[in-house]
Amino acid sequence: MKVIFIGDIVGSLGVDMVREWLPRLKEKYKPQATIANGENAAWGRGITERDYKKLLQAGVDLVTMGNHTWDQREIFDFIDNEKKLIRPANYPDNDVTPGKGLAYIKINQQTLAVINLHGRTFMADLEDPFRVGRALVEDARKITPHILIDFHAEATSEKEAMGWFMDGEVSAVLGTHTHVQTNDSRILAKGTAYQTDVGMTGFYDGILGMKKDSILHKFTTQMPNQFEVPETGRTRLNGCYLEIDNTSGKAVDIKPIRIDEDNPFFG
Amino acid sequence: MKVIFIGDIVGSLGVDMVREWLPRLKEKYKPQATIANGENAAWGRGITERDYKKLLQAGVDLVTMGNHTWDQREIFDFIDNEKKLIRPANYPDNDVTPGKGLAYIKINQQTLAVINLHGRTFMADLEDPFRVGRALVEDARKITPHILIDFHAEATSEKEAMGWFMDGEVSAVLGTHTHVQTNDSRILAKGTAYQTDVGMTGFYDGILGMKKDSILHKFTTQMPNQFEVPETGRTRLNGCYLEIDNTSGKAVDIKPIRIDEDNPFFG
Amino acid sequence: MKVIFIGDIVGSLGVDMVREWLPRLKEKYKPQATIANGENAAWGRGITERDYKKLLQAGVDLVTMGNHTWDQREIFDFIDNEKKLIRPANYPDNDVTPGKGLAYIKINQQTLAVINLHGRTFMADLEDPFRVGRALVEDARKITPHILIDFHAEATSEKEAMGWFMDGEVSAVLGTHTHVQTNDSRILAKGTAYQTDVGMTGFYDGILGMKKDSILHKFTTQMPNQFEVPETGRTRLNGCYLEIDNTSGKAVDIKPIRIDEDNPFFG
Amino acid sequence: MKVIFIGDIVGSLGVDMVREWLPRLKEKYKPQATIANGENAAWGRGITERDYKKLLQAGVDLVTMGNHTWDQREIFDFIDNEKKLIRPANYPDNDVTPGKGLAYIKINQQTLAVINLHGRTFMADLEDPFRVGRALVEDARKITPHILIDFHAEATSEKEAMGWFMDGEVSAVLGTHTHVQTNDSRILAKGTAYQTDVGMTGFYDGILGMKKDSILHKFTTQMPNQFEVPETGRTRLNGCYLEIDNTSGKAVDIKPIRIDEDNPFFG
Ligand SMILES: [Fe+2]
Ligand SMILES: [Fe+2]
Ligand SMILES: [Fe+2]
Ligand SMILES: [Fe+2]
Ligand SMILES: [Fe+2]
Ligand SMILES: [Fe+2]
Ligand SMILES: [Fe+2]
Ligand SMILES: [Fe+2]
Repeated sequence: MKVIFIGDIVGSLGVDMVREWLPRLKEKYKPQATIANGENAAWGRGITERDYKKLLQAGVDLVTMGNHTWDQREIFDFIDNEKKLIRPANYPDNDVTPGKGLAYIKINQQTLAVINLHGRTFMADLEDPFRVGRALVEDARKITPHILIDFHAEATSEKEAMGWFMDGEVSAVLGTHTHVQTNDSRILAKGTAYQTDVGMTGFYDGILGMKKDSILHKFTTQMPNQFEVPETGRTRLNGCYLEIDNTSGKAVDIKPIRIDEDNPFFG
Repeated sequence: MKVIFIGDIVGSLGVDMVREWLPRLKEKYKPQATIANGENAAWGRGITERDYKKLLQAGVDLVTMGNHTWDQREIFDFIDNEKKLIRPANYPDNDVTPGKGLAYIKINQQTLAVINLHGRTFMADLEDPFRVGRALVEDARKITPHILIDFHAEATSEKEAMGWFMDGEVSAVLGTHTHVQTNDSRILAKGTAYQTDVGMTGFYDGILGMKKDSILHKFTTQMPNQFEVPETGRTRLNGCYLEIDNTSGKAVDIKPIRIDEDNPFFG
Repeated sequence: MKVIFIGDIVGSLGVDMVREWLPRLKEKYKPQATIANGENAAWGRGITERDYKKLLQAGVDLVTMGNHTWDQREIFDFIDNEKKLIRPANYPDNDVTPGKGLAYIKINQQTLAVINLHGRTFMADLEDPFRVGRALVEDARKITPHILIDFHAEATSEKEAMGWFMDGEVSAVLGTHTHVQTNDSRILAKGTAYQTDVGMTGFYDGILGMKKDSILHKFTTQMPNQFEVPETGRTRLNGCYLEIDNTSGKAVDIKPIRIDEDNPFFG
Repeated sequence: MKVIFIGDIVGSLGVDMVREWLPRLKEKYKPQATIANGENAAWGRGITERDYKKLLQAGVDLVTMGNHTWDQREIFDFIDNEKKLIRPANYPDNDVTPGKGLAYIKINQQTLAVINLHGRTFMADLEDPFRVGRALVEDARKITPHILIDFHAEATSEKEAMGWFMDGEVSAVLGTHTHVQTNDSRILAKGTAYQTDVGMTGFYDGILGMKKDSILHKFTTQMPNQFEVPETGRTRLNGCYLEIDNTSGKAVDIKPIRIDEDNPFFG
């Protein structure tokens, strides 16, 4: 099974870049499934139904989220009806949290389970992602050995810990959230593919995909500021390519995908 | 001017890896200067005089530090006598802080200024690294256009902000501290080479270079734990190669260096 | 010199309570100056010009602020014209930050200097409040020995540290921000009056002066929420009374002021 | 039922103050039970078996802990054998965490349940104290309506939230950890006594009960430092007195206890 994962899509520049490049990536990599983190699709904060639909039309099979899940209030109107959108699973276990944190993608005779988890270090006080993650993986393994985790987290320690914690239990642990791709993709000792962060997709000449001036102003003045995603500009696409053994669910290959003007794409 | 920068060296495994590989890297890249972050050289926490001397003997020209600078108490005995060791410059401006945050490396007719700065986001309440950094860069520019900043910081936003803040003013802004190499090295618009994190050098099969079991135990139990650096095991070396224009001080090239069993070295 | 200080005024309930009770407090305590923290006057977030004017009309002589200073955008329109409104002094030293962090109140033949400082522990990366505070105190001491600091900070350690740091240099260090009055008012060894937090003024049956249900919902679900200040309900007024020696500027007395239904006011 | 609760006991000065003053407090208040937070009894960090035994001999019936529970390694040797020592209940639910978070004190025909919980805001990533607390309260209510919670937490918002969350379900929610007594003790709408922090017991002229110079040095230099608890000096005792209705378990009275040279004790 071949999979493409696309890192945090930021704003319309990011959504458009997926529309433009995903066809070429599919031609090159022939994935059976494409997953994308969409938590910043709407002007950098959350996702609208329109963005979500655009991503599906562009060829994405499942959208994952993160700490920005609820930033666009309209998500409360559509998240419970949509099967191709998941949010971090480790919200408190109650009837209040809309959406789900685990979804299955059907691929011919096979199934890929995708789990979205949220880190805690330097972040919010959600439920323990290790405990919640383990329980979901146990559920998913009853259905399929092909399991991918999008671990949306800040600290490299927590992310590497999750990789080793899940090693041998899932096909891949891929990090999102920092918006910077890491150069550490590998297959761990028991067969789980791992990358601390797959990076982001959107504006190339900014900070985390946003205009750099307002963020610089914030750091140097400590004054409040609007962070804006530009409408035009040079872009980057970050993600990774994954190959999973059809029988065992173990990873066979993981490669970073980085497309920008300094790293041109070769089909 | 060609420069090699080696990311956070963790424990004796890391020091030994520098001793083993730096000669080969020098043969390949022919650098005039080699800089290494040594804040974790002593069992993962700080640096001893012995580690420092070993690094110099291995061919390192200057050692930078970070949030672990003071972990080994003996540093107070030697930091003020050593010219090839700097610590973050943005400690409060007073007579209490030993050491310095800026050093010059003489290379034939030329000079390379190296500045060490410490981030604040998710870290300590040091002085503003942007303000302090700018003042030091102004000083250094009176002496040389070749200036390299080791920005030891956690948040990708603060690091990218520093890159753009210094763009055109220095030859390179290289991040350290997260112990995970990023795949975003590039030359910014006005000629400054940038990489969010150059990564770490030491144990390959752990978490941030430390044994994984104790850190996993910490995350899953929230109980205190000793974090240990193993004495033996597979290793990685992370860093980057930099080429700077001799006249202008602008960056000409930046390439990540990643050596481990999944990414073998080709001389 | 006698002074009344009123803790963080939250919403219109808080403003109204000042209007209702300040006359009675003045009758009882005969203060020459009344200072109030107004950072939450506008629906819990920032202050409008209208709130500010209402507080002056109610008998407040000077309004201090805190981390919510800039929450109402209109403050940028009036802060530079108003002499009776200060914001934390330890913003970066540049031309970008509107307003000032030090003001003088004229009282017959005497002058009271008021300094507003912002903590850093668990808060924002402002300039060092100890360094900035010391410099401002040195300035103020050239004009008057009567100096009061509103230290708007979260951590009890940082606040107690400021008290001892300024002991003997100023008349009083009064804490704000936690919205809970502390029971530790005292005069330190060298004559500075100290209280870790003077508390808040506004809705009595909520959390930090806001409706409790939305905050409870946030803690138990970790979902985003609007925090609202109610328009009606039982109220509390928190503050402290201070007496300063006219000649030396040393504190002679400090007493907490707590008015609510469980602690009725006796004139 | 009458209860005395004593806030964080810091070092031997604190332990000695309990030995000296608890008899007089018992004479005045006639409590049937005395509870004390002992997380800082051993030189400010954790508790030794000797400190624990001393506190029992001094008349304490139950010792609660907090974020410093594990600082003295010897606690692992005795916590599981001791019935009068509890640690925060909201550690992950596993077999690894020694000790318990709930204990019962027998008082003639009655029983007082005591629950220790740990906050998360600005603290560690423990399990949700609201969820865990609710489950333990449900258990305890099967046995007794007399339930006291020591909520060891930093943020005033989280502590007030816990008070309201438990209002009507327990006899009292008392905060510890900040080492500064708050002046907000009251009985909430449905009968739960509440105080944000009962304060600390130990050195009076320091910062959080420790010598002030080393902490001031830390804040002004950002350099590492040993925080020491002095062996001699003026002291304070902080706590609160509680009266609970024997039948309903509702609170009838809550009063802060503050003994120091500025607030002398009247028997
Ligand atoms: Fe995120
Ligand atoms: Fe994101
Ligand atoms: Fe490091
Ligand atoms: Fe570091
Ligand atoms: Fe406030
Ligand atoms: Fe505040
Ligand atoms: Fe504590
Ligand atoms: Fe404590």
